[in-house]
Amino acid sequence: MAATPATPAADEAYDVIVLGAGPTGENLADRAHAAGLSAVIVESELVGGECSYWACMPSKALLRPVTARSDARRVPGLQGAADGLLDAPAVLTHRDAVAAHWKDDGQVRWLDSAGIDLVRGHGRLAGPRRVVVDDGERTLTARHAVAVCTGSRPVLPPVPGLAEARPWTSRAATSSQAVPGHLVVVGGGVVGVEMATAWRALGASVTLLVRGDGLLPRMEPFAGQLVAASLTEAGVDLRTGAEVREVRREIPGGPVTVVLDAPGGPGGPGGAGRDDIVADELLIATGRAPRTADIGLETVGLAPGSWLDVDDTCRVTGVTGGWLYGVGDVNHRALLTHQGKYQARIAGAAIAARARGVPILESDPWGAHAATADTRAVPQVVFTDPEAASVGLTAAAAERAGHRFRVVDQDLGAVAGAFLYADGYRGRARMIVDLDREVLLGATFVGPGVSELLHSATVAVAGEVPIERLWHAVPAYPTISEVWLRLLETYRG
Amino acid sequence: MAATPATPAADEAYDVIVLGAGPTGENLADRAHAAGLSAVIVESELVGGECSYWACMPSKALLRPVTARSDARRVPGLQGAADGLLDAPAVLTHRDAVAAHWKDDGQVRWLDSAGIDLVRGHGRLAGPRRVVVDDGERTLTARHAVAVCTGSRPVLPPVPGLAEARPWTSRAATSSQAVPGHLVVVGGGVVGVEMATAWRALGASVTLLVRGDGLLPRMEPFAGQLVAASLTEAGVDLRTGAEVREVRREIPGGPVTVVLDAPGGPGGPGGAGRDDIVADELLIATGRAPRTADIGLETVGLAPGSWLDVDDTCRVTGVTGGWLYGVGDVNHRALLTHQGKYQARIAGAAIAARARGVPILESDPWGAHAATADTRAVPQVVFTDPEAASVGLTAAAAERAGHRFRVVDQDLGAVAGAFLYADGYRGRARMIVDLDREVLLGATFVGPGVSELLHSATVAVAGEVPIERLWHAVPAYPTISEVWLRLLETYRG
Repeated sequence: MAATPATPAADEAYDVIVLGAGPTGENLADRAHAAGLSAVIVESELVGGECSYWACMPSKALLRPVTARSDARRVPGLQGAADGLLDAPAVLTHRDAVAAHWKDDGQVRWLDSAGIDLVRGHGRLAGPRRVVVDDGERTLTARHAVAVCTGSRPVLPPVPGLAEARPWTSRAATSSQAVPGHLVVVGGGVVGVEMATAWRALGASVTLLVRGDGLLPRMEPFAGQLVAASLTEAGVDLRTGAEVREVRREIPGGPVTVVLDAPGGPGGPGGAGRDDIVADELLIATGRAPRTADIGLETVGLAPGSWLDVDDTCRVTGVTGGWLYGVGDVNHRALLTHQGKYQARIAGAAIAARARGVPILESDPWGAHAATADTRAVPQVVFTDPEAASVGLTAAAAERAGHRFRVVDQDLGAVAGAFLYADGYRGRARMIVDLDREVLLGATFVGPGVSELLHSATVAVAGEVPIERLWHAVPAYPTISEVWLRLLETYRG
Repeated sequence: MAATPATPAADEAYDVIVLGAGPTGENLADRAHAAGLSAVIVESELVGGECSYWACMPSKALLRPVTARSDARRVPGLQGAADGLLDAPAVLTHRDAVAAHWKDDGQVRWLDSAGIDLVRGHGRLAGPRRVVVDDGERTLTARHAVAVCTGSRPVLPPVPGLAEARPWTSRAATSSQAVPGHLVVVGGGVVGVEMATAWRALGASVTLLVRGDGLLPRMEPFAGQLVAASLTEAGVDLRTGAEVREVRREIPGGPVTVVLDAPGGPGGPGGAGRDDIVADELLIATGRAPRTADIGLETVGLAPGSWLDVDDTCRVTGVTGGWLYGVGDVNHRALLTHQGKYQARIAGAAIAARARGVPILESDPWGAHAATADTRAVPQVVFTDPEAASVGLTAAAAERAGHRFRVVDQDLGAVAGAFLYADGYRGRARMIVDLDREVLLGATFVGPGVSELLHSATVAVAGEVPIERLWHAVPAYPTISEVWLRLLETYRG
């Protein structure tokens, strides 16, 4: 029999189409579906996204043994027991399991159970409310909204030889099956310091190159200082003010030479100069770009490759009909998994409300349809040793925003719960108080064991709990949380 | 030369006299002094109180190595390293240092620096506003207030032979210089479970006898269940429904026999019966009584040995002139160091306000002069493995109080931050939501690493942050704190 000639499939209509099945896309589809809308997600890679396979999950799996070992070492009666290197094969094997062996069966089952359709393939916008998958294999139309949740990708700086050297970016750094003998890390942000911490503890020699004069530049300065001191003590060769001039790798997989701009002027060409570093692997962690270059933005009047400008409901501004949303990293509001998920909850609710014709209260910043925490209460935990945790504004950010505020600092090592947690505890806390409203604008905690302490500050900042009421929020004794009492006592004078 | 005949010293006048130099008394004196009042503390034992030498501090010093070791064991790549027993001598030596070797020089220096006078000796009330020290060595009068901050002491139940056997109570249990071979612990409250945890990990065989059917009866039932399972796995012989009928110790310091009421009826008299336990040491942790038996309460019309009834400013009710305060354990509001300190801050401010003639706003429950958290937001952390942490009302307490509420539960092991924290994480969280006001009445977290997570709930409960606003308090991913998101998602449906 002759084959039936292929006929183009009819458009498939959904209430909501989501591009990208990371945590943001999954949550957005889930919220929309829970509100009674039909939803489909288009994904060209693994369902579960960067976070599940190449970011939060595997990186935390690599880092948790480091902090657990450090914690044990700082407790009398245990120190000797936790000496020596980590069992790297055991850590990597566990990391593989945490990353679900880079298979997305579990995530797909979750989508199924949540009633969300999945289309595998590369989705591109094709004009308003229309998404074409894999160059026309399928065409989807959205009755209410298309949400771009494609996330971001690492960017390589324009250094000669760098792209050809095929360096690690965050994906390889979290999924490598072997410990490099010598790893050069470029970048002092979260990925840089976390991966320097992990691979050093797993046995690598690590050189950390930072262009500026410190680590974690978006946090309070003492965060980067405490993490830098600890990395240096762990044997990491930290070089600030380091500018990579050239990278060379002659044999794929072979050694890589990183040529730095010598402080006293450029070195001679060719060969390994005095300031050159020869290493087994190079991780570039210097910045990210939106994954919007090839999703058809041009068909709806937007510039491909750009971050998406959105309002507080995460609806893209300047698109006629208001059907396009940009949620998660792509809108550049806060490049963090939990913040993307938060936006997804808010945007999902907004899409559902608009679909029902319910008005969105723009005047209610903390209402159900405004991702207000993005600008006022973004939490972040850096899982280094010590941990660095912050929420809301730093002193510098409060200054820039024109607040009338006061900075209150506290040595964490002087808090009973802290020095009972770890002998010789080193850490510091800061809160930023809005003097006009007497509420917290932000808080930062740096020290061992502070990662779960952060949420108390997040509740205080997002909840706009008055300082006078925080006085009644009694920290249990003796926990590290008692730092709250010290901070409030200092503030009240 | 003949000695000069002793003449009675003139009364020494202070604005505020404090009986008891524990954390409560210290904080009360400090707040009064900071408000411009003169203050003196009378103390017959060590300045710093129970907490510094025989409770929070040494017990946490004994317990922290246990949780740090358990945490390390639950992390791949470290398990083998943290096997075996704790180095008991190292732990006990550190505990000694944490307890300042039972010397109060540092605390005395702090009093000096804070401008608070110290009178060493036994203080007794001698009528209104008057305190006599050591039977008349010195007599102090108070212009504004006397604050009883004498705390509480362990009580031995009326079991034949028990007092004569001189069992451990909390003091010996936290300060012992040796690990008993076999320790019997009577009592399933905080002291019982914490000390069973510590001494078992330090090498003792431990039998834990509990009269009721579970541990930690004042917390949500799952707290005691999870702690019981863990103690049993650690090798503790936990016996519920156990009633001690008799205790015998023939040689001081020698073995102690604990006779239980056999489930099938009483055993035969004399000798070690089938249900008898012969051990090296016995810890009684079944209850506490106020240290008010010998402080002259009868001279002001109150019953010696009673708990002191107080109002929300901690002023004792029914005493003419309103000059007597009962702060900390003595008022039986919440027998916890941090809550005593909180009351001290509140009562100190109230005393200062009244001294200045400023009216106290009784109508403002969360104002500066009402210890409202005592009834609505008491936090507590039990430093067992797993840790058990709670604040505010349990479901049972909410029921008793007549609230219209909803219980929301979450398996902590299903939270990414938890299973990254510890492989095979077991834990559970619960929040109690007031359906009329849509705020939290209470929360409980049980699991490894939850002790610092508690303060987020304390801020939410004391801050009465609406559930809808908590939706904007984003937990950082992947931390255990993300349990908040799960709880809120479940509540919102």
